[in-house]
Amino acid sequence: MAQVTLNVEGMSCNHCVKAVEGALEKVGATGKVSLETKQVNVEYDESKLNVEALKTAIEDQGYDVV
Amino acid sequence: MAQVTLNVEGMSCNHCVKAVEGALEKVGATGKVSLETKQVNVEYDESKLNVEALKTAIEDQGYDVV
Repeated sequence: MAQVTLNVEGMSCNHCVKAVEGALEKVGATGKVSLETKQVNVEYDESKLNVEALKTAIEDQGYDVV
Repeated sequence: MAQVTLNVEGMSCNHCVKAVEGALEKVGATGKVSLETKQVNVEYDESKLNVEALKTAIEDQGYDVV
């Protein structure tokens, strides 16, 4: 398993947390959002996913990965 | 139809807008949220609902009506 920390703009409430974590779960990754640091810690299988796919999943929810 | 403007704390994103407007719709009212002013304009049938019921619907979503 690989691990990456992404900085994400626009997450403001628990609905946002669920949207982001849910989108990551849907592509097969496990995300943990911190609203305080505006970061998402993601664990993923690097044989199946890459960072670009994680970013796309988050951006598709309307957030910017910076 | 009656109309009331409520000041609501904690609404921060479009998910919040949907949560609040959806909760009002569920009790039979029509709400319009402004994230900028933190206000919700509500139209409701005063023969079926009162302001207290509107407040409860919003508070049940985790927001404070002030």
